[in-house]
Amino acid sequence: MTFSVAHPATRRPHVVIVGGGFAGLHAARALRDSPVKVTLVDRTNHHLFQPLLYQVATASLSPGDITAPIRWILRRQQNAFVILGEVTGINVESRTIVLDSACRTLTYDFLVLAPGGRHSYFAHPEWESLAPGLKSVEDAAEMRRRFLLSFERAELCDDEVERAAYQTIVIVGAGPTGVELAGAIPDIARKALRRDFRRIDTRQTRVILLEGGDRVLPSFPESLSERARHDLEALGVEVRLNSLVTGVHPDRVYVGDATIRTHTVFWAAGNVVSPLTRMLGAPLDKVGRVMVEPDLSIPGHPEVFVIGDAAHVVCGERTVPGVAPAAMQQGKSAGRNIARTLAGKKRVPFDYLNKGDLATIGRHRAVADFGRLRFGGRFAWWLWLTIHIMYLIGFRNRATVLIEWAYAYFTYQRGVRLIMGSERTPDRD
Amino acid sequence: MTFSVAHPATRRPHVVIVGGGFAGLHAARALRDSPVKVTLVDRTNHHLFQPLLYQVATASLSPGDITAPIRWILRRQQNAFVILGEVTGINVESRTIVLDSACRTLTYDFLVLAPGGRHSYFAHPEWESLAPGLKSVEDAAEMRRRFLLSFERAELCDDEVERAAYQTIVIVGAGPTGVELAGAIPDIARKALRRDFRRIDTRQTRVILLEGGDRVLPSFPESLSERARHDLEALGVEVRLNSLVTGVHPDRVYVGDATIRTHTVFWAAGNVVSPLTRMLGAPLDKVGRVMVEPDLSIPGHPEVFVIGDAAHVVCGERTVPGVAPAAMQQGKSAGRNIARTLAGKKRVPFDYLNKGDLATIGRHRAVADFGRLRFGGRFAWWLWLTIHIMYLIGFRNRATVLIEWAYAYFTYQRGVRLIMGSERTPDRD
Repeated sequence: MTFSVAHPATRRPHVVIVGGGFAGLHAARALRDSPVKVTLVDRTNHHLFQPLLYQVATASLSPGDITAPIRWILRRQQNAFVILGEVTGINVESRTIVLDSACRTLTYDFLVLAPGGRHSYFAHPEWESLAPGLKSVEDAAEMRRRFLLSFERAELCDDEVERAAYQTIVIVGAGPTGVELAGAIPDIARKALRRDFRRIDTRQTRVILLEGGDRVLPSFPESLSERARHDLEALGVEVRLNSLVTGVHPDRVYVGDATIRTHTVFWAAGNVVSPLTRMLGAPLDKVGRVMVEPDLSIPGHPEVFVIGDAAHVVCGERTVPGVAPAAMQQGKSAGRNIARTLAGKKRVPFDYLNKGDLATIGRHRAVADFGRLRFGGRFAWWLWLTIHIMYLIGFRNRATVLIEWAYAYFTYQRGVRLIMGSERTPDRD
Repeated sequence: MTFSVAHPATRRPHVVIVGGGFAGLHAARALRDSPVKVTLVDRTNHHLFQPLLYQVATASLSPGDITAPIRWILRRQQNAFVILGEVTGINVESRTIVLDSACRTLTYDFLVLAPGGRHSYFAHPEWESLAPGLKSVEDAAEMRRRFLLSFERAELCDDEVERAAYQTIVIVGAGPTGVELAGAIPDIARKALRRDFRRIDTRQTRVILLEGGDRVLPSFPESLSERARHDLEALGVEVRLNSLVTGVHPDRVYVGDATIRTHTVFWAAGNVVSPLTRMLGAPLDKVGRVMVEPDLSIPGHPEVFVIGDAAHVVCGERTVPGVAPAAMQQGKSAGRNIARTLAGKKRVPFDYLNKGDLATIGRHRAVADFGRLRFGGRFAWWLWLTIHIMYLIGFRNRATVLIEWAYAYFTYQRGVRLIMGSERTPDRD
């Protein structure tokens, strides 16, 4: 059955956008005033402010604080129609996409593919259930559950070695997410949880950050990597560079010949792209990203755009990084190029404007890279807070996040220490 | 294996409290200054402010806003030890309780049983998966998921009858929870969601409240029941009294001979008590509550107390209702009577102080029953808001709930419209 979309009376060109993240949403918004109908499809009902996801995982924010319904964001854009559904097939010849279980088909004039990615487990998919990643609110809730449960288990554990294993948290990958997770935990263990337990000393929690490369935050300049490593170590994080994980088990992690006893492993390494990109017949890079043209369309199909984490974009001589500002800019560019095409104008190649990079490490600790201007410390941290509040969508989210942050800042507590889901038996037991 | 609890050096009497709801928590707090060791066991890590649970189900609040870790609440009470675990057995002769899968045993000198209850499906347990109840944060998140999904399904539905079924929400039971749920939905459908959908008119959402008895809010005086029914109908809720549900199916509900086409049924009827009460050998009432003595202990075992929703307490000639203030008072009474017993003093029978009853229906609509003083309307509603904010535990929760309420009040929006979990296929499809 072919599924008829809204706007039945119009014959306006149909732009289908897959994914409501930073890239897809900004593509939709860029088409706000264009004579098109826009259909945005997402697996979830919400846009997720991914840069703050680690704060959900570490019990500082609620999932609702960093999400907003995609419908609500686009409520005033009358040419936009939102579908909650999963894309299971793409046919670039017939210009159709298949939704869910093959019973619904959408025909497009333009396709904007922004499906994002997942973590890569380096050919070890069996590690995923033992070492969850951090891409969705469900991931974050699961990480929070395991993080908080590890202290509960330690408190009840009579065996000293086992107890130490429950009090050891391993984070794999020292990109921004890994560094943010690792940096957030010592503060929580030392301050927020300290008085709550009777048998364990939460200050003895070990946080081990494993990185395969030779420095943390590899996308930053070396001087800031060095500063970040120093900051992490000052917080008590054990940073192990050149450390490739060779095995993940329910009660231990292998790093080369070494063994780390732990029940709590979080994955923040590597990226792999949505399998949808393979359906395009376009050239892919090693991690599955589509090698796009300068205008972000795919070779031979100027009506198909790939943007965000699923696209390999080269700008000048540099590959554009998979960060939120790049995704937003790509969305805007794809949307505008569609509008230009319809207006009979020539497309404009995508140009990445690097506004600078920020990564936070912990209270009063962050690093900032604005090209020639590079710095770290207290000012970088406040800047990070300000920019993240500014970019959050919606007054409500800003206000509740501000309250939670002020609470955490002044009390050293964490507000959302909630274990939900199957709270008694984690998957691994 | 016998599990040794904290305080290994002490020989102080051991009070085990099962359940960290209003009753159990207040029992623990009442023993704050007593020469005992207190062990509180709960299946979850958090105390739940149940009176606001319906606001999580209707997307106004986050689960984290109305929960606080039990450990954190008791962090300054040095004689209290908290265990995250499920009680699976009680032996009143050997004075032991069994935790989880029989591998841990706790020996008590006093036992305070406050396990709460679940909804009763009137000998139809198969209805539970089709018509979830509202007792835990997991329940509330599931209800929210189904509630929000029903609009998503309706928006994509091409069949008119089916679409109407997706836009029909049935609530079973017109006690406070059922009335609060039913009263919250019309506002959301008519205001918060209205601009977000393109194909459906969310204002046409039908809310049907089914009640087996002959009035809503049966625990309130008749005049207020009448007022509440009138308020609900003014909001557009179809109130059907004397309507017993005879069948629940994935796409319909049977009420006697009548059929209601719906995909969304919420259960707020009947209560059934934790199966733990059956292990005591004490007399039970029809719904499984323990018939307790005037001091809330069970016959023949003055060291075992049952309080909260699991207890059938008669005070004067009236059965004490299963409401939060009664549970708090019972907890306090049980705790104090334990302290008195240890001090060689005589126990004081429990006396229920009815501080009054409040139920909210919708914006500016509530009913209040303070004995001779009975009223409804705007003032009752503001009173309800104030009291619920006051009783919430913790500054942070109060502040975030206030923000969410102010946001909802002034914008008519709902802040936490988040579908989490298996978002594409609900259980029933």
